[in-house]
Amino acid sequence: MMKTNPGNFFEDFRLGQTIRHATPRTVTAGDVALYTALYGPRFAVQSSDAFARAIGFAAAPVDDLLTFHIVFGKTVPDISLNAVANLGYAECRFLKPVFPGDTLSTVSEVIGLKENSSAKTGTVYVRSVGSNQRGEDVLSYVRWVMVRKRDEKIAAPEAHVPVLGTRVDPSELGSACPVIARAEWDDGLSGSPHRFGDYAPGERIDHVEGMTVEEAEHMLATRLYQNSAKVHFNQHSEAQGRFGRRLIYGGHVISLARSLSFNGLANAFHIAAINGGRHVAPLFAGGTVFAWSEIREAADIPGRDDVGALRIVTRATRDIPCTEFPVEDGAPDTPGVILELDYWALMVR
Amino acid sequence: MMKTNPGNFFEDFRLGQTIRHATPRTVTAGDVALYTALYGPRFAVQSSDAFARAIGFAAAPVDDLLTFHIVFGKTVPDISLNAVANLGYAECRFLKPVFPGDTLSTVSEVIGLKENSSAKTGTVYVRSVGSNQRGEDVLSYVRWVMVRKRDEKIAAPEAHVPVLGTRVDPSELGSACPVIARAEWDDGLSGSPHRFGDYAPGERIDHVEGMTVEEAEHMLATRLYQNSAKVHFNQHSEAQGRFGRRLIYGGHVISLARSLSFNGLANAFHIAAINGGRHVAPLFAGGTVFAWSEIREAADIPGRDDVGALRIVTRATRDIPCTEFPVEDGAPDTPGVILELDYWALMVR
Amino acid sequence: MMKTNPGNFFEDFRLGQTIRHATPRTVTAGDVALYTALYGPRFAVQSSDAFARAIGFAAAPVDDLLTFHIVFGKTVPDISLNAVANLGYAECRFLKPVFPGDTLSTVSEVIGLKENSSAKTGTVYVRSVGSNQRGEDVLSYVRWVMVRKRDEKIAAPEAHVPVLGTRVDPSELGSACPVIARAEWDDGLSGSPHRFGDYAPGERIDHVEGMTVEEAEHMLATRLYQNSAKVHFNQHSEAQGRFGRRLIYGGHVISLARSLSFNGLANAFHIAAINGGRHVAPLFAGGTVFAWSEIREAADIPGRDDVGALRIVTRATRDIPCTEFPVEDGAPDTPGVILELDYWALMVR
Repeated sequence: MMKTNPGNFFEDFRLGQTIRHATPRTVTAGDVALYTALYGPRFAVQSSDAFARAIGFAAAPVDDLLTFHIVFGKTVPDISLNAVANLGYAECRFLKPVFPGDTLSTVSEVIGLKENSSAKTGTVYVRSVGSNQRGEDVLSYVRWVMVRKRDEKIAAPEAHVPVLGTRVDPSELGSACPVIARAEWDDGLSGSPHRFGDYAPGERIDHVEGMTVEEAEHMLATRLYQNSAKVHFNQHSEAQGRFGRRLIYGGHVISLARSLSFNGLANAFHIAAINGGRHVAPLFAGGTVFAWSEIREAADIPGRDDVGALRIVTRATRDIPCTEFPVEDGAPDTPGVILELDYWALMVR
Repeated sequence: MMKTNPGNFFEDFRLGQTIRHATPRTVTAGDVALYTALYGPRFAVQSSDAFARAIGFAAAPVDDLLTFHIVFGKTVPDISLNAVANLGYAECRFLKPVFPGDTLSTVSEVIGLKENSSAKTGTVYVRSVGSNQRGEDVLSYVRWVMVRKRDEKIAAPEAHVPVLGTRVDPSELGSACPVIARAEWDDGLSGSPHRFGDYAPGERIDHVEGMTVEEAEHMLATRLYQNSAKVHFNQHSEAQGRFGRRLIYGGHVISLARSLSFNGLANAFHIAAINGGRHVAPLFAGGTVFAWSEIREAADIPGRDDVGALRIVTRATRDIPCTEFPVEDGAPDTPGVILELDYWALMVR
Repeated sequence: MMKTNPGNFFEDFRLGQTIRHATPRTVTAGDVALYTALYGPRFAVQSSDAFARAIGFAAAPVDDLLTFHIVFGKTVPDISLNAVANLGYAECRFLKPVFPGDTLSTVSEVIGLKENSSAKTGTVYVRSVGSNQRGEDVLSYVRWVMVRKRDEKIAAPEAHVPVLGTRVDPSELGSACPVIARAEWDDGLSGSPHRFGDYAPGERIDHVEGMTVEEAEHMLATRLYQNSAKVHFNQHSEAQGRFGRRLIYGGHVISLARSLSFNGLANAFHIAAINGGRHVAPLFAGGTVFAWSEIREAADIPGRDDVGALRIVTRATRDIPCTEFPVEDGAPDTPGVILELDYWALMVR
C-alpha cells in the first residue's frame, strides 16, 4: 500500500466533502519570537503583555497573520499539493484571539468545483476553519486554487461556483477583540497619535520602508507554519520548473506588507477580516518588498464605541518604492505589483 | 596561564576517563519553535500539547533529535575540537522524554582509544550521557571520532576498541514513551492511517520531497545546539580548508531526513534508539537533501501492546531524488549519498 | 495629515527633551532561543535555569546584550532614523536582571546637541533608559549620533556637549547581579577553571574562533530587536547607497564578539557596564568576525566578596584572525578592525 501522500487531484474532491487536516499545533512564545524576527512587526498589542493587559486582553495575542499562516499551512497537504496556482481568498474572519499555549487545528469543506476548459485542471473552493483546543473557531476563510487533474479523461463533476462576498459586513467584525479600555491606550507606546477618526476614505499612505527577502528567511517562515508546498523549498526541482527558482510563500508577502504598514497605521492593531486577497505576481529571494495602502472605508461596528473598522487595500510591490502609489484600483496588473489585500483593521477611537 | 580551550588531542584522552561537559542548557518552547522553523517536522506528538496529552504524555515532548543535538553539542569542545572526522554512532537510546523547562547536561566516558598507523591521528570512542535537572538520564550514545595528535612522537596508549552493539535490542526500547492510549490516537490529526501492522520488513518508502539548505540555516541550527565546531561557521578559514567552504553539521542532515520521512512514516512518532549512523559524505549549503527509508524489522516490545518498534534504515542524498531508492545495503558508497541512519522508531498499533 | 514617521532631524531635537519610545516588548524564552541561534553564546548563567538558580538568580536571566538590543531598538525611529553615523556609547550600566516575561520600554533624554561646521548635520547626545513592567530601570546608557538637518538654513541651537565619563566606577557595578553562592559555582559546567583572581591587567586573550555572517542572520536579529533602521534591510535602496549593500547593525557585532569571548572568558558571566564603544568600521554579510580581548583592570566591588570586576577591551575584526592581537591601544584605526568595546564584566572569585 502506498504510504506517502500524493495529495488530492481535482477529481478527488467532492462538493460538500469535509477534510480534517493534520497536524495540530501548539502556538508558543517561540513562534511569536520567530514571527518578530522574520517580519519585525511593532504593533504594541501583540508585542507587549503589559500593553495588551492594560487595554483589555488577557495577554498579548499572537499576530493575526501568524494564526492565519498556521491554520493555512495545515491545508496544504490535502488541498494544494497539486495546485498550479493559489487564486484567491475571501470571507476571511478572525473569530477569537489566539494566545501562546493554544493548540490549533483546521478542517476544510469543499464548497465549489469547476473544471477548466482545458480538462487538465480545475478550480477547488474550500472553506477552512481553524479552531483551538477548546473547539472554539478562531479563523474562517474561503480559498480557491487551481488543481491539476490526475487523469484528463475522467469526467468532471457538475460545476458549482460558490457565491462569495467581496466584503465582510462591519457587523461581523470584532469577535476576536475584547472591549478596548480607550483611556488606557497609550499613543506614545503604540507609536502613533493617529486614531480611527483621523483616517478618511480615499487617503493613501506610502509605508516608506523596503524589506529584502533571503532564501533562508522565507523557508524558515514557511516551515514554521508546517506548510509543505514543495515549490518553496526544493531548489533542485525548481531549477527545472516554471521560474527556475524557489517561489516564496504568498503569505510571507502578506506578513511583510502588514509589518511595513506599521509606519502609517500603527494603531490599526487587529486584522478583523480579509475581504479578498490576490497574489498578483510571484516574489523570489533577493527581491525587496515595499507597500502602500489606501483607506477604502471607515465603518462603525454596531454596538461598539471603543474601536472603529478601517477597510484598507494594501498593495505590495517588488523592487518598486511606493512613493507614487503605483497601480490604480481596477487597473490591469502593473509590473512589479505582487499583492493586493483588501482587509478590515480595527483601530482604537 | 592559557585561558582558551585548545581542545583535547588524541594523546590527552585516557581510557576510562570521565569528562563533564559545559554548558548546561534549559530547553524551551523557543528551541522547539526554531526546530520547527529549521526542519518543518509535522509529527503530531511533538507539535501539539493537546494531542500529546490525549495519548498519555504530560505535554508535547521536544523532538528526540533536538535532545540529541543539544546533548551532543556539549561534547564538541572536549571531544571533537581537533577531530578530522566524525566516524560513527552506536548504542544510542532515548531514555526519558524531555519537555520545555528541562535543563540538560552531558557527561562522557572514554571507552576506547586506537592510534592510526600514520601516528598522526587516533580514534577516540566515548559514551556520552545526557541527563536532566533531576539527574535522570535522558539519552545515552556511543560516538567515535578521528582526532589529531598534538605530537606525533608521543607514544600511543595501548589500543582498546570497544565491542559495540550493531542493534539495540527491542527489550531496551520505550522507556522515553509512556503507555499510549491507542483509542485516543487520531489518524486524521497524525496525518496517516498506516499503523505498526501496516509496515513489513523489506518495504521501501521514498519520502518524495527535497529540502535545500542555506548557510544561515545550518549555522542557526548548530549555534542553537551550542555546538562550537569551527568548520561549520568560519568561511575565512574554511576557504583555505579541505572543501573550500563551510561543512554542514551532520546532525542537521539527520534532522532534515527525519522531517522528510513524515511523508510515509507519519505515525512513527518517537525515535527510541539509533543502532548506527554514518555521515557517508559531506553536505554544503545549496545542496538539496532527499531521503528514503527501508523497513528492516518490525518488532514487538516485551510487555507493551500499545506500540511496536520499526527498525528503519533511512538514507539521505544530496541533489538526487530517491524515487529509485539509490544505493543497495552494503554496497560501496554511492555518489550523492550523505547519510545512512539505522534506527528504531515506535509506532502506534 | 502626514501619517508616516519621517524621523527627527537635527533641528527637531531640544536640549532636555524627553522622548517616550514605542513599542513596549515582552521578552520571552523565544527571544532567548533566537539569541542563542544567532550568536551561539555558552555562558552557563544565561543558558541554564538550574545553574542560575543554584548560584542565586531566580532563573536564567536573559543575555545582557539582548536587553541592550531591545532597549536600543526602540530608540531608532525617534533618534536615529536620519542618522549618518552612530558615533559612540558611554556610561552604560545594567541595573536589574531581565527575565523571560518582563516587558521592556525605553525613554530617552536629549543631553547634548552640537551642529557640525558643515551646517548639514549635527551630533545628538541622548541618555536612554530601559525599564520593566514594574517601572524599574534595567539599563541606562548614553549614545551619540550624527543626524542630518532637514534644512541647512535653520539656525542651530547653542552647542552643548555633555561631559561623559570614560569609565563607570566599580562602586556603581553589580546591581543587576545577586550575591553569587560561590560554593555552588561549578567550573566544569561553566566551562573554565579560571576565576577572577586568575586574570591580570595587561593580559591578552585571542578568542580563536571566527564567525561568518549571512544577510538572513543579521536581518533576523535586527528585526527581533524591532530596530527599524532602513540601512540594514533594504538592498534596493542600499544598492544606490554609500556601500552598495546592506550595513549590519553594529550591535550584531558586539554580540558576536561577546559570544566568541566565551573561549577565554567563560566565567565572565555578566556585563555590568559598558564604559565606551565604537564601531570603527562597518561589517557586511560574508565577512567573518574574530575577536580578542585585553584585561585593562581588575577591580573589587565595594561590599562584595563574591565577584570581582574585570575591565575588558574587546576588539573585533573582519576577516583577520586575532592571533597577533591586531591594533595597539590608541593607535590609529587599523584596517579590518570593526569594533572596540570597553566594558566591565563580573567574574566569580
